[in-house]
Amino acid sequence: MLNKVYQVPYGTKDILPGEMKTRRRIEDAIISVFDKWGYDEVKTPDFEYVETFGNTGSEGDFRFFDRSNKLLVLRNDMTAPIARLTATRLQGGEKIKRLCYLSNLYRYEEIQAGRQCEFEQAGVEMLGASGAAADAEIIVLAAEALQAAGVQKFAISLGHVGFINGLAEEAGFSAEQKVQLKNCLRNHDAVAMQQMADAMENIRPEVKQLFADFLFLQGGVELLDKVDAIVTNPQCKEALADLRNIYALLEAYGAAAYLNFDLGLYRSLDYYTGMLFEVYLPEMGYPVAGGGRYDKMMQGFGLDCPATGFALGVDRVVLALERSGAAPGVRSWDVLVAWSEGKLPEAIGKASALRKEGRSVKLCTEAMDLAQAAAAVKEYCCNSLVYVS
Amino acid sequence: MLNKVYQVPYGTKDILPGEMKTRRRIEDAIISVFDKWGYDEVKTPDFEYVETFGNTGSEGDFRFFDRSNKLLVLRNDMTAPIARLTATRLQGGEKIKRLCYLSNLYRYEEIQAGRQCEFEQAGVEMLGASGAAADAEIIVLAAEALQAAGVQKFAISLGHVGFINGLAEEAGFSAEQKVQLKNCLRNHDAVAMQQMADAMENIRPEVKQLFADFLFLQGGVELLDKVDAIVTNPQCKEALADLRNIYALLEAYGAAAYLNFDLGLYRSLDYYTGMLFEVYLPEMGYPVAGGGRYDKMMQGFGLDCPATGFALGVDRVVLALERSGAAPGVRSWDVLVAWSEGKLPEAIGKASALRKEGRSVKLCTEAMDLAQAAAAVKEYCCNSLVYVS
Repeated sequence: MLNKVYQVPYGTKDILPGEMKTRRRIEDAIISVFDKWGYDEVKTPDFEYVETFGNTGSEGDFRFFDRSNKLLVLRNDMTAPIARLTATRLQGGEKIKRLCYLSNLYRYEEIQAGRQCEFEQAGVEMLGASGAAADAEIIVLAAEALQAAGVQKFAISLGHVGFINGLAEEAGFSAEQKVQLKNCLRNHDAVAMQQMADAMENIRPEVKQLFADFLFLQGGVELLDKVDAIVTNPQCKEALADLRNIYALLEAYGAAAYLNFDLGLYRSLDYYTGMLFEVYLPEMGYPVAGGGRYDKMMQGFGLDCPATGFALGVDRVVLALERSGAAPGVRSWDVLVAWSEGKLPEAIGKASALRKEGRSVKLCTEAMDLAQAAAAVKEYCCNSLVYVS
Repeated sequence: MLNKVYQVPYGTKDILPGEMKTRRRIEDAIISVFDKWGYDEVKTPDFEYVETFGNTGSEGDFRFFDRSNKLLVLRNDMTAPIARLTATRLQGGEKIKRLCYLSNLYRYEEIQAGRQCEFEQAGVEMLGASGAAADAEIIVLAAEALQAAGVQKFAISLGHVGFINGLAEEAGFSAEQKVQLKNCLRNHDAVAMQQMADAMENIRPEVKQLFADFLFLQGGVELLDKVDAIVTNPQCKEALADLRNIYALLEAYGAAAYLNFDLGLYRSLDYYTGMLFEVYLPEMGYPVAGGGRYDKMMQGFGLDCPATGFALGVDRVVLALERSGAAPGVRSWDVLVAWSEGKLPEAIGKASALRKEGRSVKLCTEAMDLAQAAAAVKEYCCNSLVYVS
């Protein structure tokens, strides 16, 4: 009967009832945690002028023109729109703004499990607060949101842009070499990293070794002391102190057990200025959440204030729950109300009464006999039958 | 300080915390009613190939091309995507499918209060069911969803495409005249309608009068008998009988009091084939919800089945609640936890304990003295203060 196959666009998908049920449960749980921590939900348009994203558009954008020939972009990131909203609409009021969102994002990418061109993020941004207290809150909130969503096992990797910049400074890197370094870190390119280290001259051998090991500078809080004993650059030392402060607060939150330091952690968005983190699940080969501090971005919107935040991939959480069997994806209703010929008005009364009692009810749209009704209960995913005859 | 004004695109808007709070409450209430009536939530991509909407794109579309130069459209309607999803992904299972959604839609239009280019709809589609039982369920569900959202006063106008087509047939209209008639009805153009009636020849004067009055054929159930006594066309008579059956079921639901018949009601989407309805609020000059039966659309997706449904404009409901004062748009949190220098770890313990008890808590990110803390409580919209010193 199909005269055409009606597909969805590349990188998008339909979300069917079973998955949608899981997704809505997750969304509600996450928004409820954000609310409990004092975050106000906001919503921005699904597309923005390209200027909001601070450039003329990137390779992965979905772009189009409005009627005045201005370039629009389906949003590829939520941090910039929230910064724009705060700078233009929320000046005044609380000095520190806690905002959260649940939004679709769009990036043209090669698709794979857990990576689609249209995907959903839940996230928070805390604007106006600097310091470890704010950063620790953000990291713990990411962990709480995942737990509320039903994710039990995860690990948090924590790094710091200040440490990376400081070490590059200590090595006397040119701007070009700094970019090269960040690319190595971003792509986890251990070979190129080793080559960079090998090419270094006039540098203490311990520092050279730090570069060679950059992608493997991972471990517990003792790693910070070990590295601190080697570096002399003030930016490096400040970053390590910052990480130590954050760690102490995570201990107070009872969340330090999830934490691993990863001093080579670098995230693909360039606006980060301080701590950075990613959350990994054992089932997944990519982070399910990530964030960090971005103290310079707000300047671009005319509001000079520090900021920190994170985003969590809702699709990835759904996938992880499905893989771990925690998202059965089946659902059922309480009652099927069926009726014999002429008894529909009575059946309507019965269905209405049951709904008033709080039961979920499917009402048949055609008369049927009792045998048909008994067979329909299962087909309609109902737990019990009320037959009006 | 603002070096640029960062605006949102024409016809879109930021949703700030107060409004967002109202909106989420409304969304949750509506989805919960849909669930209680046996509807499964689904989600479709925010953009689709233009073919899904059965044409090469219309004036009001936001269009762009994918990497293979296929034309994409930000969805301008949810009924077609749901039909596509059902035909391609949900064949089998229940004979009658009850689906619901909460989605952003995009149409390039002149903006005014309650009409934006980006807007949100909540709606349901019942696929596979013909007859008055299904249509009555849809109409009552629209009313229940509005009530759950907090809308108390509304009126439902009910018409029928079969009646309009039948009367055009009775008048011997050409295809062109039928289009002209529907344009008159859609635009509420009483002058053009009168001219059409005046130009009619070889037609019974009572029928001619029906055309002249077409835009005013409104009233209670007695209107159906009055009109039925005039018309002879079988399609007209069937439509009137259908409306009478729906009315009887609305009485059984206790919802007949909301109802007014409007035999000249015509909705701008051309896929309707049977009953049609719109819901009006006293505060608003446009419908807040509307729907109807569309028994032919599914054929285009290779699945020949009857269908009926409605959609409700979430933005319009929010606006109505704001206008009626039922959406105060302010919110508050339970506790502000403030702390003196060095007491942050203790304050974290206190905040965590309060959250475990179910309280919503904002934790200060900087040390402050008691006087500052007392002043901060109001700024941070909290109801009480816990000061850790």
